[in-house]
Amino acid sequence: MAVKINENYLMLKSNYIFSEINQRVNNFREVNPEANIILMGIGDVTRPLPKAVIDKFEEAVKEMAQTETFRGYGPEQGYDFLIKKIISNDYLPRRIELSEDEVFISDGAKCDTGNIQEIFSLDNKVAVTDPVYPVYVDSNVMAGRTGPMDQNGRYKGIVYLPCTEENEFVPELPESSVDMIYLCFPNNPTGTSLTRKQLKEWVDYAKDNKSIILYDAAYEAYIREDNIPHSIYEIDGAKEVAIEFRSFSKNAGFTGTRCAYTVVPKEVIGYDAHGETHSLNSLWNRRQTTKFNGVSYPVQVAAQAVYSYDGQREIKESIDYYMNNAANIRESLNNIGLRTYGGINSPYIWIKTPDKMNSWEFFDTLLSQAYVVGTPGIGFGPSGEGYLRITAFNTQQNTEEAMERISKLSF
Amino acid sequence: MAVKINENYLMLKSNYIFSEINQRVNNFREVNPEANIILMGIGDVTRPLPKAVIDKFEEAVKEMAQTETFRGYGPEQGYDFLIKKIISNDYLPRRIELSEDEVFISDGAKCDTGNIQEIFSLDNKVAVTDPVYPVYVDSNVMAGRTGPMDQNGRYKGIVYLPCTEENEFVPELPESSVDMIYLCFPNNPTGTSLTRKQLKEWVDYAKDNKSIILYDAAYEAYIREDNIPHSIYEIDGAKEVAIEFRSFSKNAGFTGTRCAYTVVPKEVIGYDAHGETHSLNSLWNRRQTTKFNGVSYPVQVAAQAVYSYDGQREIKESIDYYMNNAANIRESLNNIGLRTYGGINSPYIWIKTPDKMNSWEFFDTLLSQAYVVGTPGIGFGPSGEGYLRITAFNTQQNTEEAMERISKLSF
Repeated sequence: MAVKINENYLMLKSNYIFSEINQRVNNFREVNPEANIILMGIGDVTRPLPKAVIDKFEEAVKEMAQTETFRGYGPEQGYDFLIKKIISNDYLPRRIELSEDEVFISDGAKCDTGNIQEIFSLDNKVAVTDPVYPVYVDSNVMAGRTGPMDQNGRYKGIVYLPCTEENEFVPELPESSVDMIYLCFPNNPTGTSLTRKQLKEWVDYAKDNKSIILYDAAYEAYIREDNIPHSIYEIDGAKEVAIEFRSFSKNAGFTGTRCAYTVVPKEVIGYDAHGETHSLNSLWNRRQTTKFNGVSYPVQVAAQAVYSYDGQREIKESIDYYMNNAANIRESLNNIGLRTYGGINSPYIWIKTPDKMNSWEFFDTLLSQAYVVGTPGIGFGPSGEGYLRITAFNTQQNTEEAMERISKLSF
Repeated sequence: MAVKINENYLMLKSNYIFSEINQRVNNFREVNPEANIILMGIGDVTRPLPKAVIDKFEEAVKEMAQTETFRGYGPEQGYDFLIKKIISNDYLPRRIELSEDEVFISDGAKCDTGNIQEIFSLDNKVAVTDPVYPVYVDSNVMAGRTGPMDQNGRYKGIVYLPCTEENEFVPELPESSVDMIYLCFPNNPTGTSLTRKQLKEWVDYAKDNKSIILYDAAYEAYIREDNIPHSIYEIDGAKEVAIEFRSFSKNAGFTGTRCAYTVVPKEVIGYDAHGETHSLNSLWNRRQTTKFNGVSYPVQVAAQAVYSYDGQREIKESIDYYMNNAANIRESLNNIGLRTYGGINSPYIWIKTPDKMNSWEFFDTLLSQAYVVGTPGIGFGPSGEGYLRITAFNTQQNTEEAMERISKLSF
């Protein structure tokens, strides 16, 4: 006998996309030490936390210095003061009613979208859009739901729903029945979104097939068009079939501060082997109370300030700033004949590579000729081949500079 | 077809100990609204964060307000500035050398001790001391390593190592071979500790049996006696067979601020089905980079300040304060003829119930006659029956008041 590892980990792709990018950028830097490289690959924000957030964050830190106001362990599910703000600001205005025990505060949507699969059976069939945020796939590989990867870079046990130019990035309903469906809209990496009507088809599918939709709405704040839903619960019946993930990372700049939340309505159910129904809210509550100890108190106070009058004004300014970059990127690239998608309700622009280049060839071209770093679409799945992702999160100056350089290239 | 839940969750004991305590305390309060109840059950600190920590915490929050110093995503494994302090303060003085990529910063030892089992096969045999911190057991129940609970409150698939008066709370080596061994010393809940010699037996066992020791050292800062190891790596060969969990919760009051760390040496290995060895450091790194996004930057800066001269002085004061409470509790209870354990190298005192009362009877007696709340030992496992845990984390005034009241009782 000997302690055995979880061999599912051995089926993970070993070269994570961002390591490979770093490698190529470092190699290029060594040969071209003078090149002023502009990073437009990673989805990290660059603007500081809003002043309204900083002020409350500091106040909460000061509270931790006095016995009378010091906070030890808080509720694993998060403090009521934050949950109430979330419900009254993010949901009630859209006529979505939630009770406080349906919202779970966490330290990140990455954690929650990675951990959520734990409350489901290993026998479920998983569907993901392709290209896709790697966490959905990798967390299921690790759990043992997928089996090994085939030569096309797809895991046997996963149903892939291609999103490409051909279907205008709208995933088609799966031909065979699936149980767990990961949807992210506005989408990372393609930047495209679904209309209410298109999302309703998925909710109806889930109801008909007794599936669960794991809906990642991390980019909700970037939606500009009226026919795009901000929450899946805007769709009738979604409360019975959907869990929604939200984050303060991309709307309020919390990527390094860490706060997010997940909505698990009381109505949403799963089944046991006898066909009996079980509340997923209870299961998630049990998962969180057992393996999580709540988000830092000062961070939750800081997140609450996002909902203040000044907080809302400041985050709107930041989002406008990034979306101005997005418009610049789209226009510049379209002007030199590149086809782009996204960037209208999202900070991501998905570029179709020119001249039938593959993702890495186009990556290398932009790096070597314009000193601009994007993310090769192939890194997000097989259907990402032939695309490249550019983000709007850099500064206006760097974004303009990058676009000027690219505009001088000819394809 | 329908989405199936993880049915292992249904095997969890439904009444979590602290809910039941709250229920009984609330019932008592309703009937005795004037009673001044003193809570000595939960292991939460009461003293505020050290001033040295607060100062740096505030500075780091201010950094988040300026574009030039703002931090977005940090390394999932934690910032080097904190890891370096940990190695040079907590390990090097004990002649334990670690490299920076062997230390993983996280938001809590509860998360890490709950998540660590993910990197191991479901086929491993798990051993826990009994009584035990419930997270070790519950996280393995959820994963499916244990099977159902029997009528004695034990899970079939777990090997329980009783720690009672009879063996002086020193677990005996298991009779059958086990693969994953959870050890927590100084122990929660019994407050007892192992000497270097006693811990060496476990390291030798693990080496002989190719087992892994998951060593929870969250209460390390409370050790007062020289023959008690602060880290399992003080034992020769432990780096090959042990993962160690540490936390800023109990030494520096971070229960509501959230920061901890886990050490996974490069040497520690697991096996695949073919007997090939694999680095657990790589597996944990993959787990964390996939499902975790790092600890809040200002919190990591705050944790770093724990290692400053003033920070060290202040946490020593707090620990002395709590240990003064512990000494008071031990002395008071011994004076009225109660047998107590722990409280010497730990903030927990483990009381043998008098008159053959069971845990809940003694709990009810202390609540109704002294308005003092402890934690029934049975809540930590079958071998905790006949014991009750009292913590030293309340204020000196409350602790003295509680002891005065209990001292008037006769058993």
